[in-house]
Amino acid sequence: MNISKIIELIKKGNSGYITSEIIEDILITKAESIKFASKNQISFLELNNKLKDYVFKTNVSALIIGRNEPLINEIKKRKVSIIVVENPKVAFAEILKIFNKQYDIKLGIDSSSHISKTTILGECCYVGANVFIGENTRIGNNNFIFPGSVIYEGVEIGDNNIIHANCVIYQNTKIENNCVINSNTVIGSEGFGFIPKDGKWVKMPQTGGVILKSAVEIGTNCCVDRPAIGFTEIGEGTKIDNLVQIGHGVIIGKNCAFAAQVGIAGGAIIGDGVILAGQVGVNNRVKVGNNVIASSKCGIHCDIDDGEVISGFPAMGNKAWLRSSSVFKKLPELAKKLRQLDKK
Amino acid sequence: MNISKIIELIKKGNSGYITSEIIEDILITKAESIKFASKNQISFLELNNKLKDYVFKTNVSALIIGRNEPLINEIKKRKVSIIVVENPKVAFAEILKIFNKQYDIKLGIDSSSHISKTTILGECCYVGANVFIGENTRIGNNNFIFPGSVIYEGVEIGDNNIIHANCVIYQNTKIENNCVINSNTVIGSEGFGFIPKDGKWVKMPQTGGVILKSAVEIGTNCCVDRPAIGFTEIGEGTKIDNLVQIGHGVIIGKNCAFAAQVGIAGGAIIGDGVILAGQVGVNNRVKVGNNVIASSKCGIHCDIDDGEVISGFPAMGNKAWLRSSSVFKKLPELAKKLRQLDKK
Amino acid sequence: MNISKIIELIKKGNSGYITSEIIEDILITKAESIKFASKNQISFLELNNKLKDYVFKTNVSALIIGRNEPLINEIKKRKVSIIVVENPKVAFAEILKIFNKQYDIKLGIDSSSHISKTTILGECCYVGANVFIGENTRIGNNNFIFPGSVIYEGVEIGDNNIIHANCVIYQNTKIENNCVINSNTVIGSEGFGFIPKDGKWVKMPQTGGVILKSAVEIGTNCCVDRPAIGFTEIGEGTKIDNLVQIGHGVIIGKNCAFAAQVGIAGGAIIGDGVILAGQVGVNNRVKVGNNVIASSKCGIHCDIDDGEVISGFPAMGNKAWLRSSSVFKKLPELAKKLRQLDKK
Repeated sequence: MNISKIIELIKKGNSGYITSEIIEDILITKAESIKFASKNQISFLELNNKLKDYVFKTNVSALIIGRNEPLINEIKKRKVSIIVVENPKVAFAEILKIFNKQYDIKLGIDSSSHISKTTILGECCYVGANVFIGENTRIGNNNFIFPGSVIYEGVEIGDNNIIHANCVIYQNTKIENNCVINSNTVIGSEGFGFIPKDGKWVKMPQTGGVILKSAVEIGTNCCVDRPAIGFTEIGEGTKIDNLVQIGHGVIIGKNCAFAAQVGIAGGAIIGDGVILAGQVGVNNRVKVGNNVIASSKCGIHCDIDDGEVISGFPAMGNKAWLRSSSVFKKLPELAKKLRQLDKK
Repeated sequence: MNISKIIELIKKGNSGYITSEIIEDILITKAESIKFASKNQISFLELNNKLKDYVFKTNVSALIIGRNEPLINEIKKRKVSIIVVENPKVAFAEILKIFNKQYDIKLGIDSSSHISKTTILGECCYVGANVFIGENTRIGNNNFIFPGSVIYEGVEIGDNNIIHANCVIYQNTKIENNCVINSNTVIGSEGFGFIPKDGKWVKMPQTGGVILKSAVEIGTNCCVDRPAIGFTEIGEGTKIDNLVQIGHGVIIGKNCAFAAQVGIAGGAIIGDGVILAGQVGVNNRVKVGNNVIASSKCGIHCDIDDGEVISGFPAMGNKAWLRSSSVFKKLPELAKKLRQLDKK
Repeated sequence: MNISKIIELIKKGNSGYITSEIIEDILITKAESIKFASKNQISFLELNNKLKDYVFKTNVSALIIGRNEPLINEIKKRKVSIIVVENPKVAFAEILKIFNKQYDIKLGIDSSSHISKTTILGECCYVGANVFIGENTRIGNNNFIFPGSVIYEGVEIGDNNIIHANCVIYQNTKIENNCVINSNTVIGSEGFGFIPKDGKWVKMPQTGGVILKSAVEIGTNCCVDRPAIGFTEIGEGTKIDNLVQIGHGVIIGKNCAFAAQVGIAGGAIIGDGVILAGQVGVNNRVKVGNNVIASSKCGIHCDIDDGEVISGFPAMGNKAWLRSSSVFKKLPELAKKLRQLDKK
């Protein structure tokens, strides 16, 4: 695809096209990092990106960049075609989508799959080898279910979902539309509900279900448990990375993003737009407000107000935590100083 | 089922029936949270439960409750049938079991499963689609092995166990009776045994096995490794949540409960009745005494005496940790005060 | 195998044979821990090992031990045959390999596996039941692919690799030689790349791949993600335990060892010989130098120089962290003392 064609696409896209300048309208064959890009390739640069220095060495043919006059002038000197947009990363994502080799999945139902007679399956679906689908499950149109996945009975799946290989979806799970569930993730297994009694554990039956709203994406090896009663729910547009635990009865809002190895204990309520970095833990029944950001390894023990930026364990304001952590490093000398003062 | 029938069942159960009062012996069709419950439904209330306020708005037909005279009197005014027991949660678990829709698993061996000729399989078992069972494995009666699970050779499984979809059970694993292993969990894979030598890693062969005693339950996506020699062992009645790591050669006592994302390193010894909250870590070869409770994210570096309640990283007494953590938040002002005193 | 034969093998091995003394050249039938070993068995003792006391009670027939004259003399009194080597653990690993019961895997392709016509499969391979291999995948010689594993299209696998049951290997993954991937691990799934835009998340297509160099071993339930562009790479000889997250675009050097539940965020660069203990987290784009050692639960937020030994969260030098942590426990009394001084 020639640079001029790429610019046309970016203009129609969502990155906020500003201007462009074509040095030579040559063929672009690949989208690549500025670190490795060469002739006939296109790359991008985030504002304040660490990779800025590569611009002065690159042989890339076209570069997507934000509003940054001094840098744009430098690049022009190097005879690189420039496309200026509000959000270069979004533009690059759009271009990458074009160059992304589409893998060749043949629609249809593999003859080795097991689909029960009472299951209703929509049109234009792919059901891979050895997939198992239990009784009374309803699956809409344009779904991709990759090899080895197991769907228990009584599941409802909407349209345009992708369920990767070796996932397990339990009974009483509802998946709306445009969701992606990556490999080996388990949705709807029984919550960890045990009652202590006479030194042993009595099991609370987990009769509830799980609801994934539209455009939810979940990584690999995750667990989303069902509760004793009611539903565990993940809100529209929320994205979840790998190895994440969502406990039974947790309610998660819209458009959240949780990094890998986050754990949310049973009954917690998470607002909209919440960002949890890697290995964050949320205690059971805690309420986390809208747009809260928690940095990595944060341990959230109590309710958090909307918009807070928190860190540490137990969680506190991020700035206060940074200050306290910096004093923590000096504790031995502070203790020494205190002993000296005390002696005087 | 009518309220009078439910009361009969609770009397026969383990919740410690005290008394009851039926306002109207109507049909109960569902067990539901007090938050959502309506007519023809039954609910429960824990003592000191946060959901107490819902009692004054509910239209539930029957309520299970503990000894709490003032609250019982309030509920009576609302014309709700009352069942008073020592342990309302246990009573509710018993009732929930009745209303739990039983999924329709047909006993028998799916024709797509692969069971080696040298395997002995007991009576009344379900072996689902695509299950693989290797040579010389012995499986008792009333076992449910769900689709896609793989059992290597030389495994011994007792009676009444449930192995959910896509689990993997390695050679030299012994599972006693009444265990539940949830989806995508791996039991008996090789321990992480590597010896540093000349800047590389020499592999220690992992020739041991894993023993799960009776009534052990393990969540989804867990790992229980086998050791170089001997056995990794999980004691009777111990319950383990999702994404938990049990290292090679770990010995775990009876009736423990480990929450999600706990990690126990190789050779650790855990007593009976130990409770580990989410994301707790135990170092290798550490001994944790009986009935120890560790709060979330606790890092256990050294041996812990029986009955301790611990927190933090490195682990310390819970109360001391709470006090120290509260001072941690004030460290910047303490440091400032100290500088001021020092100047004087 | 008689003791004299075992000594011959150790002489040819890599443990650095020094000397030996056979009391009686009897048959050895098992390699066992000194804690449990009895007659006709062989065991070993690490220098400074906690199990030293068992030597004075054991009936073991042969013992592998390092240079430790006083201990050797004690053992001689007990009439135990002795094999002295530089590295007893390595010698024991070699012996254990001999006594390790080899499981009986029949080479060949199971008739229930699905191998696409465009896939090239080498000689002497085992492809287990229900394995799925997509289009245009190339697999070398002597590979073991256990039941239920799914390999998407366009994967390249060298020689002598073991892929355990129910793994998933995505397109654009390259696995060199002599690698081991344990059960339910996912290699090459899409990185967690989402761009915030107008309160929602725009997906960055993940078009890259994953490279596992030779002799990499990965535990169970791990995730190694592919990046938007380029490759995630794990260096030769690196060993990874269970439930580990390797984010998109991470570059890991040679001969590292990562314990269970480690998480490495996208774009981090890890040197050679790095050891990360359990539950360590590495932030995105951080550089960790060669031979760094991080203790359990360490949170690595910024670049770390070669050879550092670090602990805590945020990470600091291990010794400094131990000192600060020891003061942390005394914070309430320090605060009290400071208040008293302030009043004076």
